[in-house]
Amino acid sequence: MSLVIVGSVAFDTIETPWERKEKIVGGSCTYCSLAASYFTRPKIVAVVGEDFPKDTISFLKKRNIDLRGLKIVPGGKTFHWQGRYGYDPNQRETVRTDLNVFENFRPEIPASYKKADIIFLANIDPDIQENIFLQVEKPKLVAMDTIGLWISSKPTTLLRVLKSVDIFFVNDEEIRMLTNERNLIRAGKKILGMGPSLVILKKGEHGALVFGPDLLFGILAHPCEDVIDPTGAGDSFAGGFLGYLDKVRSFSKREIRRAAVFGSVMASFTIEDFGIDRFKTLKPGEIQSRFEHFKKLISF
Amino acid sequence: MSLVIVGSVAFDTIETPWERKEKIVGGSCTYCSLAASYFTRPKIVAVVGEDFPKDTISFLKKRNIDLRGLKIVPGGKTFHWQGRYGYDPNQRETVRTDLNVFENFRPEIPASYKKADIIFLANIDPDIQENIFLQVEKPKLVAMDTIGLWISSKPTTLLRVLKSVDIFFVNDEEIRMLTNERNLIRAGKKILGMGPSLVILKKGEHGALVFGPDLLFGILAHPCEDVIDPTGAGDSFAGGFLGYLDKVRSFSKREIRRAAVFGSVMASFTIEDFGIDRFKTLKPGEIQSRFEHFKKLISF
Repeated sequence: MSLVIVGSVAFDTIETPWERKEKIVGGSCTYCSLAASYFTRPKIVAVVGEDFPKDTISFLKKRNIDLRGLKIVPGGKTFHWQGRYGYDPNQRETVRTDLNVFENFRPEIPASYKKADIIFLANIDPDIQENIFLQVEKPKLVAMDTIGLWISSKPTTLLRVLKSVDIFFVNDEEIRMLTNERNLIRAGKKILGMGPSLVILKKGEHGALVFGPDLLFGILAHPCEDVIDPTGAGDSFAGGFLGYLDKVRSFSKREIRRAAVFGSVMASFTIEDFGIDRFKTLKPGEIQSRFEHFKKLISF
Repeated sequence: MSLVIVGSVAFDTIETPWERKEKIVGGSCTYCSLAASYFTRPKIVAVVGEDFPKDTISFLKKRNIDLRGLKIVPGGKTFHWQGRYGYDPNQRETVRTDLNVFENFRPEIPASYKKADIIFLANIDPDIQENIFLQVEKPKLVAMDTIGLWISSKPTTLLRVLKSVDIFFVNDEEIRMLTNERNLIRAGKKILGMGPSLVILKKGEHGALVFGPDLLFGILAHPCEDVIDPTGAGDSFAGGFLGYLDKVRSFSKREIRRAAVFGSVMASFTIEDFGIDRFKTLKPGEIQSRFEHFKKLISF
């Protein structure tokens, strides 16, 4: 099968209570494709400026990520997000956003991607997400992510996109905004009535819940004592989840449960270091052993 | 084996965003003993006034709870707590507390209780908790609970009691107060260095974590769509946990994991109705089937 990821490749400036990192590589598409690359050969659709580091491009290639859909704008500057985390890693504030080349980004799906089986619309403007549907040929599965900004600024388009997708990745804050429900179980079930047949509710340090018709699955987060940088955890979850499904070529309930655990595993590695640094050393064996550790953690 | 529970039997006035209940039966000892009564024959130590309803006494007896340690003060008025919950059931505020007969409560352990194997010091003044140690003969296991009030008002005694117990039940807010650690994994491990050999960290709708030397076990909360009244969830958890251990007469890691699931199961029933009402209809078969449901919820 094949997996296409549409999203951002970016610079992030990250502030935590302990450290600050200036203009390191980030972006939803970057995290997601790196996480997925341990399971399949993801194809990305994104845009960067000429200032984007060549060694990162080499690293993504080395991780076997298909970059034919990565547009490099000559003379352009890469999207730059600056965020600040408090002592609670679940809470972050956007300090500054420079859209740069992202401002006029109208993703074009390369001809070689059009028959993709799985499409992931990572967090981008819902208008752009919607446009992707016109460019692909009957994918088996479409998944999406979003953020609070789009829920409040573009609810109509967002709800229309939501109606057309199969899987929705969302966090607790966002699902409460969208459904006006405090109780997460009710909120998850409510989304099932809004289009998706699967809702992946990410709860940060408290794990995740997977809702489907006739399916409710819960996982804990890996018990992490040092969250170095929470950025990209959600995108890495999606990457592990979708990459695994693409690899096993099955959407059975059993595989969906396992996919969610692999998603959680990938997220747990991402937060162990700043930006995408953890992927530079991560070995497949570590992923498998953390998967086994998840089993041990919950067994009774 | 045998289980002695020392705590409060009380009246609660409960306000939720949807309903208000005036002077219904509550109290840590009440919830804990009712939950434990499905596994063993708990013995309670508590005090009430003459105004305490006779039919509740009959109900507790019918549930096979040993009431020889329940003191009824002639002409006295029962302890009365009034609390208010917001839309977030994890957040509550105390509106009013009338100590009444509880003000001069100095629990005396009846002679017939003194050889108890397991003692549970439910949430009461740490000075009273400490005094219990002088009254019992080498129990196999002592467990305790507390609340933020005692952490801030009597930290010295509290830390001394903590040093002497085997199991500490605590919620996320309290453990952060006690350890000054935001990260719950670090906080749990820190408590292990302060006395207890087992820490049960209750996270409400996000489940619970069990820490021991060489043990880390996580459980989800039962996915509940309608939390009617969160009061007593923590005490019911402790009752299910300790009642189960008392029944199986083992403190092995396997049984501790299972005990924590039964604790979570009992808490999940308590919150389905106001006060202790759910216990009036709860059948053992329902407990077993919810235990099985927990397994299904997390299996992958």
